Parts: sequence; structure tokens; C-alpha cells
Amino acid sequence: MKIGILGAGSWGSAIAIHLAKKGYSVEVWDKNEDLLKEINNNHTNTKYLKNVEIPDGVKGVLELSECINDKEIIVFAVPSHALRIVCKQASSFLTEGQIIVSLVKGLENTTYKRMSEIIKEECPNNEVVVLSGPTHAEEVSVGIPTTIVAASENIESALYIQDVFMDSNFRVYTNTDVVGVEIGAAVKNIVALAAGISDGLGYGDNTKAALMTRGIAEITRLGVKLGANPMTFAGLAGIGDLIVTCTSMHSRNRRCGILLGQGMDLKSAMDSIGMVVEGVHATEAVYNLAKNVGVEMPIVNALYDVLFNNRNPREAVNELMTRDKKSELEIII
Amino acid sequence: MKIGILGAGSWGSAIAIHLAKKGYSVEVWDKNEDLLKEINNNHTNTKYLKNVEIPDGVKGVLELSECINDKEIIVFAVPSHALRIVCKQASSFLTEGQIIVSLVKGLENTTYKRMSEIIKEECPNNEVVVLSGPTHAEEVSVGIPTTIVAASENIESALYIQDVFMDSNFRVYTNTDVVGVEIGAAVKNIVALAAGISDGLGYGDNTKAALMTRGIAEITRLGVKLGANPMTFAGLAGIGDLIVTCTSMHSRNRRCGILLGQGMDLKSAMDSIGMVVEGVHATEAVYNLAKNVGVEMPIVNALYDVLFNNRNPREAVNELMTRDKKSELEIII
Repeated sequence: MKIGILGAGSWGSAIAIHLAKKGYSVEVWDKNEDLLKEINNNHTNTKYLKNVEIPDGVKGVLELSECINDKEIIVFAVPSHALRIVCKQASSFLTEGQIIVSLVKGLENTTYKRMSEIIKEECPNNEVVVLSGPTHAEEVSVGIPTTIVAASENIESALYIQDVFMDSNFRVYTNTDVVGVEIGAAVKNIVALAAGISDGLGYGDNTKAALMTRGIAEITRLGVKLGANPMTFAGLAGIGDLIVTCTSMHSRNRRCGILLGQGMDLKSAMDSIGMVVEGVHATEAVYNLAKNVGVEMPIVNALYDVLFNNRNPREAVNELMTRDKKSELEIII
Repeated sequence: MKIGILGAGSWGSAIAIHLAKKGYSVEVWDKNEDLLKEINNNHTNTKYLKNVEIPDGVKGVLELSECINDKEIIVFAVPSHALRIVCKQASSFLTEGQIIVSLVKGLENTTYKRMSEIIKEECPNNEVVVLSGPTHAEEVSVGIPTTIVAASENIESALYIQDVFMDSNFRVYTNTDVVGVEIGAAVKNIVALAAGISDGLGYGDNTKAALMTRGIAEITRLGVKLGANPMTFAGLAGIGDLIVTCTSMHSRNRRCGILLGQGMDLKSAMDSIGMVVEGVHATEAVYNLAKNVGVEMPIVNALYDVLFNNRNPREAVNELMTRDKKSELEIII
């Protein structure tokens, strides 16, 4: 089995290590050639995975075409904003029968399209399977027990990827609800930002659990409107990924939220984090998407006002707490 | 509005404080008379709520009959093992029209009945509303923003309790799925024990999120078999309460699990915690209940073997990870 991986960031590298340990021949491409040279010469990728040795089975290749040629599976592990352009480049090298696996999470700016929609548009002749779940790359790279969902409308493709990727430290479940899996992944950073704000305000575990639970409730409402199965959001790509993101200090989104809750303005908070805070862009995208499709998302709306309209976060929480009385299962079912 | 609360532990006292702050006249009864005297004389309950002042509106009463007479609402906040006997005592004082609110979580030993089933058997002439959700008593007692579910088959009763209990720090959602709300509450300590074991073994955030997510999946399977709505487990009394329990060091169940994961035997771990570890008893009850009704619960089974059959926890995790390949939504939907 030969697998090509596009993107040598932390998640692409961790999956490369996992697959090489399973005995597959793995090639990795990235636009940053220094990363590839370090992988080949030192068997490390210190920028993205500290103190981890990359096995011999992983080889960095400088040409995109080389990474795609003769591979049974092509894994996309690039940042969401780079996906369409990489798809356009890759499409001329892809051949029929090669299966694409997407590790990319997010919604496209302005179009609000899911990542697999972009791949389908640019690479229409290849099956796509989405992998998503509670998976810190650092933990996967050192073999800590991890679970993940392989989602495809074509169950045969999902079963095939389950088979290829699964081992005793990496348990893969299948799901045919691609919309639900991708919406869960795209929107969870918003809730992580809100959970961080709650922590920064000095609120408690009760408040954070409320934001996470009611957050997934409104994500579920959005997903159902877009055609998803509500139970997917109770699964690994929904609440599972949300738990990991909202409780870990690894999460940039949560750390940015803490600074906002402590009273910092958005620009200073983002500067202080120093890397892209995806939840900020996701909030704007989901705020607009929810408006377009007519779904009520009170936490997203409150967060949007805090981020972009200088709303006081404590007042925003108070407003969430004093909304009209509701039934818990309203709209969802 | 006059409200009687049976049980002056941490949760009963926190709810008494919350209701008195709303301006209601609250009386509290407990079999421990010293607690009641401390509430009346010092306005504190230092055994259960440190550094919290109890408002004047809360009065301790020594007679159960006095606590029940002339109240619109009677709140049961006793330990689960004491519920049936307190119900038997209370039933002769209850009058029609008084609404019972249950804060009690668990399943009865040997019968595996839910708490509201016990109340209905012993006090058949009164409506019962169950309150459950992610609610550390310590946080509620000091007014930290908290959400909770009021569940009753009779939506009018649930709406009434929502109205009485809700304020800007305590947001109440209604739900008519009593079975789901009570099963979620009864079973979450089992998952907290398993999550603790994972932490004690040195596993990561990925592993814990997997146990929580797949834990709620098997709880959902059990609940659906017993007549619950699957979406309830994605709500505050399901994943919400589970998040609070599995991520807090306040949880005795989680702390006991950590000791087990570090290699301590069950008796020593329970002695070291020094208080009842409800998850241990719940595991036995749910293991048997799931067998009786024919529901597959692999995490509960693995935990049962670790607790009662000296199974090595690391091997148990490995066995969970290497089970047959599954679809994520299998059986649930």
C-alpha cells in the first residue's frame, strides 16, 4: 500500500507516522521544502511535532506530482484556506480509482462550502472520505489510544479507509453522514472560543458545560437544516472533538477566548496568540450561513457581537441566560 | 411561594440558597439535626458548602411533617439509597397538589429502578419533576451561571418548575423525556470512573474524549431500549453532566478511577477516597440491567471486569480498541 500525504504540518505528519508504523510506504509533500528536507535528513519535524521521531517509511518529496503518482490513497492535510488551490494543482495528476482522504476542517470564506465540497468540485473523478474526531496530532504521533470517524456517502469507501487506517491505537468508526461530520468539525472552534471567554470571565465548570452542550445543540440545528443526521453531532466528530478542543490548553481558540474574557480586545488577543485563531473567522462564516438558511444560533450571535461589535462578554452571557424559556429538544427533533 | 427541601447535603443546600435568593420562603429538613442547627444559628453548612453564607430565607426544621406542610413544592435531595425510606415517611404528610421535585441521581440496588419510579410508587398522588444537568453545587451556591433540565411527562408541571426555579444565573430548560434524563444522570459516574482510569494510565485527551463520546453512545443505546429519546443524551442531563463529571477534580468517581489506573486495587482506592464512590455500585447495576434488557455496553463490561474480576486496565483499553470494526451510528438510530 502506497499513500501520499499533501501537507507536512502537525496533523499530516502525525498521520504519516501512524501509517508508516502500520507498514505502508508513505510520501509527504509540502510547499515548505525545509520541512521535507528535515524529515528526510533528520527524521524529525520539530516545527510541528516536538520530540517525535519520524520512521523510515515516511519520505518527503518536493514534487506534488511525485507524491500523487502510483498512490492508492491521497491524504489532504493542508490548511483550509489553501485547500482549493492545492486541489486545482493536484487534479491534473490524480487518476481514477485513487481515493482522497480529507483531514481539512473549516468552511470556505464567502462561499461557506464544506471542505469535501471543494474537493469534489476540483477533483470530480475521485471518491472522498473525511476523517474527523477528537485527535490531537501530538497524541496520535506517539501512539496514544485515539478514535476517529471515516465519513463518506459511499459506505464502501468509508469501510476501505477504516480498514487501511485502523490499528490497536487508532480505532476508526464509519459514518455516511458527511455533512454532519464536516459541520461539526468546522464549527467547534466557535464553541471553544466561547468556552474560553467563560473561563476568562471567571465562570465555572457549570457555565462551560452549558456553553458546550447548548453550543452543540445549535450546531445540530444548523447541521439538520443542511441535511445532517442529528446523532452525528453526539458522536466523535461532534461532541467528541468539541470536548478535546474546549478542555485543552493546546487549543489556540480557547486561549484566545480566555484573553477576551479577561478584557483584552480582539486584535490584541489575536496578536498575543500569534497564530491563526480559526474560531474568529468561523464565527463570521457561521453567523452569515445561519442567517442565510434561517437557523437560530444564540451563542454564535452573542459571540459575533463580542468579537465584532464590542459587546461586553459578561452582558452577552447574561443575555444568553435570560432568553425566553425553552424546551431542551426544541427544533432539533 | 413556600418550598420544603428534604436533605441538607451540598446539593439540597445549594438549591435552598438559590430559591431563598429568589425571595421564596424555604424550609430544609435533614436527619442530621446538627446541620439544621448550624443553618439556623450560624447561617452556614460548613460540612457541605465551605465559605458560603446561607440567607435568612432558609430555615432548618427538625420535623419532616413541618417541612412538608403548607408547601407548594417539596424537593427531594437525599442520597439515592435513602430515597425510598424518606418517600415512605413523607407520603403520609403529602397532600394532593404539592409538586415533588427530585434532585436524586442513581438506580435502586437490585430493582434497578429510576428515582422517580420509586417516588411514584411511594407517593402516587403527587406529580414529580426531575431536575438534572451539569450543576456543581458549590458553583450554584455562589450564583455562577448554570443550566439545568426540568423533566416531567406532564409538560405543565415541567413548565411550572421552570418558572419557579429560573433566574439570570440558573437557566432551566424543559424536557418530557424523564427516562432519558434519569438514565443519563444515573450512568454518568460510570464513564467518569473509566475516564479517570484512562488518566491514571497516562493516556491522553484523545483517549478520554473517546471514552466519553463512546460512553454516551452506549448509555444512549441503553436509554433508547428503556424508552428514552436519543437526543436527550446529547443534552444537559446527558453529555452536559458527563462533561462536568469527567473533567473536574471534584468528582470522587474520577479520582477513584485515577488511582485504579495507577495500579491500586479497588478496595484501597475506595478507602483512599473515603466517601461513597457511586460509580462502582452504578457499574454493577448497569452491567446487570444491560444484560437483562439485551443491550451491548462494551465500556461498562470492560469496567466491570476491571473492578470486580481483576482485569488489567491497560489490557481492557486494548480490548476496547481492537473490537470488531463498527459504524458510529450503529444501533442508536
